Amino acid sequence: MKSVWGKNIIISIFGESHGEAVGATIHGLPCGFKLDLGAIQAFMDRRKPGGRLATKRKESDIPRIISGIKDGVTTGAPLTALIMNEDMRSSDYDDMACLARPSHADYAAFVKYGGHNDIRGGGHFSGRLTAPLVFAGAVCEQMLNEKGVYIGARLKSVGKVEDDGFDCADWDKDTLLSLRQKDFPTISEEKAELMKEEIQKAAADGDSIGGVVECVVIGLKAGVGEPMFEGVENRLASIIFGIPAVKGIEFGGGFSSARMKGSEHNDELYAENGEIKTYANNDGGITGGITNGMPVIFRAAIKPTPSIAKPQRTVDLRTGKNTVLRVKGRHDPCVALRAVPCIEAAACAAVFDMLNERR
Amino acid sequence: MKSVWGKNIIISIFGESHGEAVGATIHGLPCGFKLDLGAIQAFMDRRKPGGRLATKRKESDIPRIISGIKDGVTTGAPLTALIMNEDMRSSDYDDMACLARPSHADYAAFVKYGGHNDIRGGGHFSGRLTAPLVFAGAVCEQMLNEKGVYIGARLKSVGKVEDDGFDCADWDKDTLLSLRQKDFPTISEEKAELMKEEIQKAAADGDSIGGVVECVVIGLKAGVGEPMFEGVENRLASIIFGIPAVKGIEFGGGFSSARMKGSEHNDELYAENGEIKTYANNDGGITGGITNGMPVIFRAAIKPTPSIAKPQRTVDLRTGKNTVLRVKGRHDPCVALRAVPCIEAAACAAVFDMLNERR
Amino acid sequence: MKSVWGKNIIISIFGESHGEAVGATIHGLPCGFKLDLGAIQAFMDRRKPGGRLATKRKESDIPRIISGIKDGVTTGAPLTALIMNEDMRSSDYDDMACLARPSHADYAAFVKYGGHNDIRGGGHFSGRLTAPLVFAGAVCEQMLNEKGVYIGARLKSVGKVEDDGFDCADWDKDTLLSLRQKDFPTISEEKAELMKEEIQKAAADGDSIGGVVECVVIGLKAGVGEPMFEGVENRLASIIFGIPAVKGIEFGGGFSSARMKGSEHNDELYAENGEIKTYANNDGGITGGITNGMPVIFRAAIKPTPSIAKPQRTVDLRTGKNTVLRVKGRHDPCVALRAVPCIEAAACAAVFDMLNERR
Amino acid sequence: MKSVWGKNIIISIFGESHGEAVGATIHGLPCGFKLDLGAIQAFMDRRKPGGRLATKRKESDIPRIISGIKDGVTTGAPLTALIMNEDMRSSDYDDMACLARPSHADYAAFVKYGGHNDIRGGGHFSGRLTAPLVFAGAVCEQMLNEKGVYIGARLKSVGKVEDDGFDCADWDKDTLLSLRQKDFPTISEEKAELMKEEIQKAAADGDSIGGVVECVVIGLKAGVGEPMFEGVENRLASIIFGIPAVKGIEFGGGFSSARMKGSEHNDELYAENGEIKTYANNDGGITGGITNGMPVIFRAAIKPTPSIAKPQRTVDLRTGKNTVLRVKGRHDPCVALRAVPCIEAAACAAVFDMLNERR
Repeated sequence: MKSVWGKNIIISIFGESHGEAVGATIHGLPCGFKLDLGAIQAFMDRRKPGGRLATKRKESDIPRIISGIKDGVTTGAPLTALIMNEDMRSSDYDDMACLARPSHADYAAFVKYGGHNDIRGGGHFSGRLTAPLVFAGAVCEQMLNEKGVYIGARLKSVGKVEDDGFDCADWDKDTLLSLRQKDFPTISEEKAELMKEEIQKAAADGDSIGGVVECVVIGLKAGVGEPMFEGVENRLASIIFGIPAVKGIEFGGGFSSARMKGSEHNDELYAENGEIKTYANNDGGITGGITNGMPVIFRAAIKPTPSIAKPQRTVDLRTGKNTVLRVKGRHDPCVALRAVPCIEAAACAAVFDMLNERR
Repeated sequence: MKSVWGKNIIISIFGESHGEAVGATIHGLPCGFKLDLGAIQAFMDRRKPGGRLATKRKESDIPRIISGIKDGVTTGAPLTALIMNEDMRSSDYDDMACLARPSHADYAAFVKYGGHNDIRGGGHFSGRLTAPLVFAGAVCEQMLNEKGVYIGARLKSVGKVEDDGFDCADWDKDTLLSLRQKDFPTISEEKAELMKEEIQKAAADGDSIGGVVECVVIGLKAGVGEPMFEGVENRLASIIFGIPAVKGIEFGGGFSSARMKGSEHNDELYAENGEIKTYANNDGGITGGITNGMPVIFRAAIKPTPSIAKPQRTVDLRTGKNTVLRVKGRHDPCVALRAVPCIEAAACAAVFDMLNERR
Repeated sequence: MKSVWGKNIIISIFGESHGEAVGATIHGLPCGFKLDLGAIQAFMDRRKPGGRLATKRKESDIPRIISGIKDGVTTGAPLTALIMNEDMRSSDYDDMACLARPSHADYAAFVKYGGHNDIRGGGHFSGRLTAPLVFAGAVCEQMLNEKGVYIGARLKSVGKVEDDGFDCADWDKDTLLSLRQKDFPTISEEKAELMKEEIQKAAADGDSIGGVVECVVIGLKAGVGEPMFEGVENRLASIIFGIPAVKGIEFGGGFSSARMKGSEHNDELYAENGEIKTYANNDGGITGGITNGMPVIFRAAIKPTPSIAKPQRTVDLRTGKNTVLRVKGRHDPCVALRAVPCIEAAACAAVFDMLNERR
Repeated sequence: MKSVWGKNIIISIFGESHGEAVGATIHGLPCGFKLDLGAIQAFMDRRKPGGRLATKRKESDIPRIISGIKDGVTTGAPLTALIMNEDMRSSDYDDMACLARPSHADYAAFVKYGGHNDIRGGGHFSGRLTAPLVFAGAVCEQMLNEKGVYIGARLKSVGKVEDDGFDCADWDKDTLLSLRQKDFPTISEEKAELMKEEIQKAAADGDSIGGVVECVVIGLKAGVGEPMFEGVENRLASIIFGIPAVKGIEFGGGFSSARMKGSEHNDELYAENGEIKTYANNDGGITGGITNGMPVIFRAAIKPTPSIAKPQRTVDLRTGKNTVLRVKGRHDPCVALRAVPCIEAAACAAVFDMLNERR
């Protein structure tokens, strides 16, 4: 497994769910940047397990930075943070060592790694590996903010409940940043309540539920990204699919654009006070792979947490026999909720990487 | 612009819509493989302009291979093909040199390249650059077929017209390959007619229409891909977004999975005749970034062709003044149709690249 | 074979000695740069076969640029040049198809490519592949000159004849550029005559002779390169060993530094007129992988041309029997001479790539 | 700084000389390999500071593996080891914070990082960063040994004292492995004594001395590597120059080949017992970038340790004034000695990476 991402910065991620620690090294950061460690911690706390709607695993998730900073300022050398694993209950995984959990990587990994991968808690496949990704994103975010770029995300939907819409062409910074102050990041408080009900109902049923996360980047000037393979869409997708349970990504109008006429979809332009903008933003701020100065908007589809308490048909990988499994352990009933800061963080890393491309 | 993709094979793409030629070099191909040039041509002909529902630009699109083969057999050296540009009408672009076409890259490219990029026909942003990509994919496809891997795609929808469904867990090779024999690659002939009507109606209105392409890979064994950033989803997305007008990609259930419960979505497993399969295939053949032996299924959202004859509001980039544009030139009313072989080809390249990863 | 080099620019090289053409695509060039095609041709002419001391193969070696420029100005899109192969005598290679030429890649390539690689003229292993590399370097050189960076090289030695020394800490631009006006690029005319005699003697004996090429980069500011794997030495070495027959590279004092005391070797510093320099330049302008503002100086060891007319013991790869070979064909008696512009060009590409790293 | 190396495996190195720890993550290792931790420690102990001829800094240098193994067996997930820093005397660096040490990276780094890099002990530029590199190489070595590939190195020279020669075409495994049992890795005990005298003399004078390390790889089959930029020479050079103080690398005959005639240099071939070999090995086991089955032999030139007690002229970077510096601290009088295991380790990593290339 090569868990390395990036070109202008390079993020190397390591660790396993029930190993000693997870962590990340970020190569290529600028030197002389004073990191706000409190803000990094606050970002990580949003992803942290715990809370009524999330897994009960308890992790303090305090990143310990062991290289790359001196007196809180980046040195330009690779920056490494460790996040220790604390509350592991490997026994939860004893019985099912050989029962492939449906919609988990168990069977595929068994074939690929011949049983040598660490299956406890999912090993390197675990959602726990998003902790170092969030750390890396939180570092990048501060450097982006300094350049006037802000990134935020919300829960766009849980199951069939959708958050209220907004004007894709005119996201303001305050609305964007207010989302991260909320326990449940939606625009509508009312819809938040409905979503919570859905999640609690699923949890009560020993079930889980999917959702969509929408992420917005504001403050990016026109001219970031390239046609073909180094486009903003390609680069964002290449990191976002690194977050477990993501099954789709769409930009701007996305799949709904595919149902439109050109005359409905096209983002007509206008000039105002020396700036060129578009009336709508169905392209999600990206044309030809390049930002056009409008907010970059994308959505990620998050499948329901595959670990559910309900009995499921599966195969015992030792014996090859059909059997039934009830997944034990402490799982998020709606992993989309904790995916929100993960997707923000991945977007921060990707956008910062692209901004560092020579222009 | 760095139009280079791949790790185990590396595809380098060059050319501009109204330059002398477009082309591709494929590095890292195995030696000793006898290429079926006729099959390559047939693949390229499916993408070729012309036909009642596509642009009227006439291109013979015969790839001229200038390196990497001897007596029709690959030598192992980089394989380069040129595809000459023939039917260019640069004058179509004279008027609009400075009028940014809505939902095209014109404005973003103007900011980034300061007017130095070749705007005739879209330059390196043109859909014409998919010709060398299709060439590269067609070469890879033959090497995949030899390994028992087959890739096909269909038009899943045009506007609001959807093709009939099929069993995602049980695509057979014959159905898959029959699609490429059709002028209009859908499963249902009836739906094909309805889609054609939609396209013709859009064309008649000086408008265009979007669509969704669905692509299926069969014959891939479990164990291809990796967790985090080298997953099958990440790698496919990183190349598919290289095709102009793609605004979204989803795997298996994709965005509809986000509306499901875990108990609805999860792909329960069963063993049969020594093989392990899943009943459904909502994961689209990929868990934890790794193939699980089921068909790999993904869909790409294709926005409507942005070039439409209807008048549109825009800005004159020279003067910064608001104005109105009518796009001239010969354009596909539904670019999704010609995207079908492009997406197949990109998938062929990506899957071949991943298959060549050491395991 | 993956003949791709670079990070901030990416050079993709293709072609085979007796194929239709060799060529290169350069990705990542800036747009808006007016290329001096005459200067590119002049650079390529210095590498071109012909002349009393080189192979008699006749090639016009006029690069045909088919993408990436418009009206002589770079568009920012990938720039591709073809160099057609003209004077091929594949029959020279008929007899020896299966007789491994000593110190050539024949045996290694036979094992690796199973006889599928194009052996005529060496195929993709041929020194002819330096033609597109020189093209790429010549393009980069013009962009370097614009930034005040100049690169030149000389024949430092042929066999045991050494050119006169010079002050490593104080190369001036005029001396550097005067070298490329000479048919035989040495500082001392007298030593040039002695070297030519050595080469002619070797040629007359059906033999060949090695040499050392010394390359100097002036005008580079302090701060280019990085510690560990992205150092200037690492990056230069990674491209210079791409030139056939190079068997060593050393920077500054190089192997002679290994015989020194620290007090002899160390480059003491001084400040003068606000600039910081070193008295000597045993580090060759690089410390910790980073330029220190002094001239970057390196030397490449070029082995004698392996193709010699003298009979040599070898093995028939078909039969596995020991036998004797006399290499036919037209070969340079001292490939180091034509390596001079190749090494300059490779250095131009590497330095330009590094200069484009974000700082 | 991006301290990342490799393609099929990826090594990410982090840490600073006087930070909390140095370390490495190795991505892409095979799973299911039982690591011999004692052998890794033994490899690292050879690099460890201490001993009569090396720096007096005391470090236990016990790698703490925090991810990628379970029960001593690799899981296939990224493998990370930390090596804690213990005996730091940062006060040694107080005075000289602003006095650029001659032939160190101080001045270049000051310009590049504006004083933000951690200068204590050299920060990320320190030779201490070879500890994680040696760890990574020691892991790779075990996997190479399993494939019958063995790597060893010796001190070829110290100052002007040369170790005795050997037959480059016939290195045997026992001689190779016996070198690492020695405190002072030479073939001749007598020459070892002379070298030690040179080192002690330099140390007594407050001076240092350079040396050459020769490294040999046996057991590599023909067919590893590629022409042009992915050759064995390119790849080895790209990592070997990551070791501080390396100023040159040569393969086989190297710079002495450049003084030879073709008839002297060429490696004639012969078949014996179904194997094809060469009489001599002036190509160092590599032709056209590809191994030919003979031992791979290369030498690295190591400059004298730049830190010497003798007074040296330099510049105060704060004031820009000329001044004189006496370097304090504990330094190796001949860094070439401790470079021996570093170069072995780097070669292990590079060879293992190349062996994992699909063939």
